[in-house]
Amino acid sequence: MTIRLTNTEKKIAKKLTEIKKKSSSHSPSPAMLLSVKGITVKYDFCYLSNPYATELFLKYFNKDTVNSSRFRKLVEYYPSQNRVLAEKLEQTAGVPAKNIFVGNGATEIIQAVLQNFVRKKILVPVPTFSPYLEFVPKGVRAVRHQLFKENQFRLNLNELIAQVRKEKLDAAVIINPNNPDGGQIAFSGFKKLIGSLRNLETVIVDESFIHFSGRKMESVSKLVEKYPNLIVVKSLSKDFGIAGLRLGYAVMSESRVSKLLERGFLWNVSGFGEYFLGLLNRGDFMCEYEKVRLLAVKERDDFFTALSKIPEIKVYPSKANMFLVELRDGSRAQDLMVKLLVEYGIYVRLCADKVGLKGEFVRVASRKKKENNYFIRALVSIFRGV
Amino acid sequence: MTIRLTNTEKKIAKKLTEIKKKSSSHSPSPAMLLSVKGITVKYDFCYLSNPYATELFLKYFNKDTVNSSRFRKLVEYYPSQNRVLAEKLEQTAGVPAKNIFVGNGATEIIQAVLQNFVRKKILVPVPTFSPYLEFVPKGVRAVRHQLFKENQFRLNLNELIAQVRKEKLDAAVIINPNNPDGGQIAFSGFKKLIGSLRNLETVIVDESFIHFSGRKMESVSKLVEKYPNLIVVKSLSKDFGIAGLRLGYAVMSESRVSKLLERGFLWNVSGFGEYFLGLLNRGDFMCEYEKVRLLAVKERDDFFTALSKIPEIKVYPSKANMFLVELRDGSRAQDLMVKLLVEYGIYVRLCADKVGLKGEFVRVASRKKKENNYFIRALVSIFRGV
Repeated sequence: MTIRLTNTEKKIAKKLTEIKKKSSSHSPSPAMLLSVKGITVKYDFCYLSNPYATELFLKYFNKDTVNSSRFRKLVEYYPSQNRVLAEKLEQTAGVPAKNIFVGNGATEIIQAVLQNFVRKKILVPVPTFSPYLEFVPKGVRAVRHQLFKENQFRLNLNELIAQVRKEKLDAAVIINPNNPDGGQIAFSGFKKLIGSLRNLETVIVDESFIHFSGRKMESVSKLVEKYPNLIVVKSLSKDFGIAGLRLGYAVMSESRVSKLLERGFLWNVSGFGEYFLGLLNRGDFMCEYEKVRLLAVKERDDFFTALSKIPEIKVYPSKANMFLVELRDGSRAQDLMVKLLVEYGIYVRLCADKVGLKGEFVRVASRKKKENNYFIRALVSIFRGV
Repeated sequence: MTIRLTNTEKKIAKKLTEIKKKSSSHSPSPAMLLSVKGITVKYDFCYLSNPYATELFLKYFNKDTVNSSRFRKLVEYYPSQNRVLAEKLEQTAGVPAKNIFVGNGATEIIQAVLQNFVRKKILVPVPTFSPYLEFVPKGVRAVRHQLFKENQFRLNLNELIAQVRKEKLDAAVIINPNNPDGGQIAFSGFKKLIGSLRNLETVIVDESFIHFSGRKMESVSKLVEKYPNLIVVKSLSKDFGIAGLRLGYAVMSESRVSKLLERGFLWNVSGFGEYFLGLLNRGDFMCEYEKVRLLAVKERDDFFTALSKIPEIKVYPSKANMFLVELRDGSRAQDLMVKLLVEYGIYVRLCADKVGLKGEFVRVASRKKKENNYFIRALVSIFRGV
């Protein structure tokens, strides 16, 4: 039986729609939803994060700032400048600091890269993370490359190359694993693809979800040396569970880093962000991090197995920490979203505004085992109408 | 007797010069100085902040996040988007949210404003905060308007207007109170000046130090309604002692806010920054803040009196929380800077790289009474050669 909202839920749905309007093509933050009477976000399955990693960060942070003068310095002092922070990312990025641009979250980097290194027409596979469509500067055209649900949203490399040539595009972006579906291109093919695109002015590869891809992580960052048109974007929010700190980086040619830093991006990372970058260079933290990373990968895989057993939905395979879930019992995605929120305190991403994605879809983050299990139970109950 | 460095101090001076090179036209962060053996920054008189306000922030923050789940949310969740944050600044800015652009520190705002709203030639009084010269986009010229020490670095409004007309400038920036000297233009004359510049495409007024100006604070923000070419920039780092959070805002025409948000600046403030914006709307915090603000004003004035009594220096009157100090006993500013750092752990701003400022100058922040007194004692001892 399809999902039906009560009158109260319908009223809440209306309010949510109003709040959503304020958030452009993104979801309202959990804090924004506090203003709606009758709902409390207990579990955020909308924004994407590794909650185990958040806990690991907090463990270190609390220990390190027990001495409150250290905490005070994070608040009071200007953080270091971009080039100094880049040195702290060498180990993680696997490239020299001169090739690293540090950003106030990946969104700042996307904005900077699109505005400075894309000039005419950029290929953007859709559905995708919307800033790649929206932050394109005036005069530049974002040319969509449609991914089809019939192909499980998998990128066909040959078709992509064909479109680039046919439409004479000078730039392309590829998110790998992709958002919102989590589809990943195999590494060997991906490397070849980048080689095939070597004549474009700019090729952006977004690896923000790479830590969830599996036991082995394969980044194309090192190819920047061979292909100076390549820019690899990496959010640190999701994999490390620190979205509130605003932190990310990009690997690109030395001259491009210099071009960006010449006219800005001076103190764009907070004291807390700088503290986090210090952790990335500590053996103890990274050793523990590897465990929570693999735990998140395992939970994601278990979550997929559980979701796949629910007949009312279709779940697409994912190498990121989220699943694109399609309703196939005739229910509306918005009704499911409201029901989960009102009855279970679960917040999921409605995909109605995703360019290139037609149908009834929600995007569901994978969280901790207990939370994922709670989600499964909630979903089953809703479909049973109980 | 002029200041003379020991051999050890000379070696340290050399290392500091190397580190300084990495920091472009800004001072190395106190954290960067940690790498130099033989020095510890105990008192940061280089970067500008109200330390009383930092303590007030920490008092509230610690109380509010004793419940650790709140702290966790600040780290884990995406903060609200720009337009939502702008609503939290209405009371402080005294204008509607639609006229407020929230920035990741004033430097991000300066970068955004120069790149989007300045097209040909912008007048920049010097000496000044260097990003106004450096972040000017390619193709735009920053035309210097010299301030003279003989006039105590005071801006002559008629001369400024004359230069704007003569050189057909289409934009101008005025920092009031100015950095690095703290000079302030009287409010009535300032309003007239803005009226006289109404035909320029853009007039930027930077009021980052306005909270230190005195008991009464007079902002030109409300004039944005009358003069849509006006942009008022405000750092929150200095007045509120929270440089590590990276937070600032600008007041500008509604259409300019929209233009900026259309293609970026989505999640540019951290969870900690968003928490701070909440405090600005709390009566208890703002009542206590007013006290620490006035305390900082008083300490600044007392510091001026004490500095003025030291015959080896000339100190320029200031309505900000810093003083431009000129050595007039033949000593070199760099030697004083090194001596203060090595012998007293005091870090001051060397002004050798300040465009439009020739001579032996250091910039000294005003801090807490005890620290300011310590600074005075240190300075007197150095000049006595003991």
